[in-house]
Amino acid sequence: MNTIQINPIGYIERKSIEENDKDRSLISKIIINESLIKALDGINDFSHIYIIFWMDKIKDTSYLHHPGKTIDSKPVGIFATRAPIHPNPIGLTLVELIKHEANVLWVRGLDAHDGTPVLDIKPYPDWEHGKCILVDDFRVPNWLKKI
Amino acid sequence: MNTIQINPIGYIERKSIEENDKDRSLISKIIINESLIKALDGINDFSHIYIIFWMDKIKDTSYLHHPGKTIDSKPVGIFATRAPIHPNPIGLTLVELIKHEANVLWVRGLDAHDGTPVLDIKPYPDWEHGKCILVDDFRVPNWLKKI
Repeated sequence: MNTIQINPIGYIERKSIEENDKDRSLISKIIINESLIKALDGINDFSHIYIIFWMDKIKDTSYLHHPGKTIDSKPVGIFATRAPIHPNPIGLTLVELIKHEANVLWVRGLDAHDGTPVLDIKPYPDWEHGKCILVDDFRVPNWLKKI
Repeated sequence: MNTIQINPIGYIERKSIEENDKDRSLISKIIINESLIKALDGINDFSHIYIIFWMDKIKDTSYLHHPGKTIDSKPVGIFATRAPIHPNPIGLTLVELIKHEANVLWVRGLDAHDGTPVLDIKPYPDWEHGKCILVDDFRVPNWLKKI
């Protein structure tokens, strides 16, 4: 399969305090390329949006990951975890949209470093045939409930 | 900002029937590169996963989109819609994981064409500090409730 070329639509700006660099309670700014301002029209009618970003500081990758050192579990495949060391370090985070002004979005809940490139933005939730698609009835591994 | 190079982790395989090519009720197969088989370990402990894919058949892009021709709404910014014509045509779909065998996943709910490259897979839901992050209390635009 061919390599895909992606141009970021913007980047994340946040006060970079090393120890809580990925703290979700902080507010981040998303600076969108000025050429895309029109594409943000009406986004503030949504309270929540997905941010899809590129974790460019991730250099390692791994096939297996141990989800928690304190729990008695064996390593699981990296696609069964949210650890950032996926083959493609794509971040996917649902955030609260606080404010939109021109080409800047203020959001709460983003676990990403200052300067991270943003690939796409999508409204939440997914919607089809007049109703939203939310899945409340799901199954997760036991190890996940312990971390 | 620099262009990002992404190598797909696999591709989508589905019976291509033109008129319901993106029908979500059909079962799709996701064929993962054989070198990544270990990275799928334990994924079938999740009932639902996100598929992040690259809609390579999308050639157009637009800043504004009219969400529904039958409803009385004005065009909105493309980032406020799930229309595929985003600047980066990244697909994000929550699917039900039916079966996992070696490097193949069978899923229900994927609105993607046969042959679509897959960029990443993430378990659902997001999880932090011992609890899952699900947002039930959200606000959406009025136009969305009418389509």
